[in-house]
Amino acid sequence: MRVLGIDCGSQRTGYGVIESDGRDHRMIAAGVIRTGAKSPFEQRLLEIAGALRGLIREHAPEAAAVEEVFYAANVKTALKLAHVRGIALLAIAEAGMAVAEYSPLEIKTSVVGYGRAEKSQVKLMVQSLLSLPQPLDSEDACDALAVAICHATRSSSMRRIA
Amino acid sequence: MRVLGIDCGSQRTGYGVIESDGRDHRMIAAGVIRTGAKSPFEQRLLEIAGALRGLIREHAPEAAAVEEVFYAANVKTALKLAHVRGIALLAIAEAGMAVAEYSPLEIKTSVVGYGRAEKSQVKLMVQSLLSLPQPLDSEDACDALAVAICHATRSSSMRRIA
Repeated sequence: MRVLGIDCGSQRTGYGVIESDGRDHRMIAAGVIRTGAKSPFEQRLLEIAGALRGLIREHAPEAAAVEEVFYAANVKTALKLAHVRGIALLAIAEAGMAVAEYSPLEIKTSVVGYGRAEKSQVKLMVQSLLSLPQPLDSEDACDALAVAICHATRSSSMRRIA
Repeated sequence: MRVLGIDCGSQRTGYGVIESDGRDHRMIAAGVIRTGAKSPFEQRLLEIAGALRGLIREHAPEAAAVEEVFYAANVKTALKLAHVRGIALLAIAEAGMAVAEYSPLEIKTSVVGYGRAEKSQVKLMVQSLLSLPQPLDSEDACDALAVAICHATRSSSMRRIA
């Protein structure tokens, strides 16, 4: 199955598309949507929506996954992020997909096998699971791939159980 | 000028369209977008986006205003609301409009003349300013009309000063 993972951020939104049977994963695309920091916020949302729709058209994922919203850091940042997340959920729904949501704990447990794993461990495991020649430059793209891997693994297990 | 006001909410999103020269205001439309409470959240966002786009097509506003996001009550509710607000900002930007944002204080000061006005006072003033035969049933529609009136009044003053 082809899975799109999105890592929403108020400044940068990471994305990753993988092809996976739940065990072997292959990276199809990954990157970061950056928007003009000086543009009005609604223009940035428009750019993000356009970019996500383009990615969905191009890679035709069958499923999409995002990280659950969390607000540990800073309420103002979390609220900005939630606006972007709304746009991501809309783009997914427009494409007729359901949204799968995972907590950071679930993602780390699935990818690293340990819910309190460090960022660097997630990065190494994403590289390893996707057989990439080198680690990803972008943390946002890496996090997006991680949530995609998490969803592919989880939903494959669910199908096997059912 | 024709102004669309939107009062975002995670359950109900109020809207109001007015025609105004900055002094005399006339209500064109007002109501509430309600979404299936049992639908997945992304489906509700899709419904809200569709409804807002339909309203913008039908009433062709030249400007749009929303209340600034605030998070006095409950962070979880505020985060849900911010997702919806992202959708509203996107619909406005898609229509080529800029988003005007006002704090509750600015809206109440503009509509009632007193920044700490009660909800009931806002309701009466909205009814009076729009010469409505009776007060609005919906608080969400009323708040949406209030932000539209605030924007019409403010931008008319700005034009006069300039």
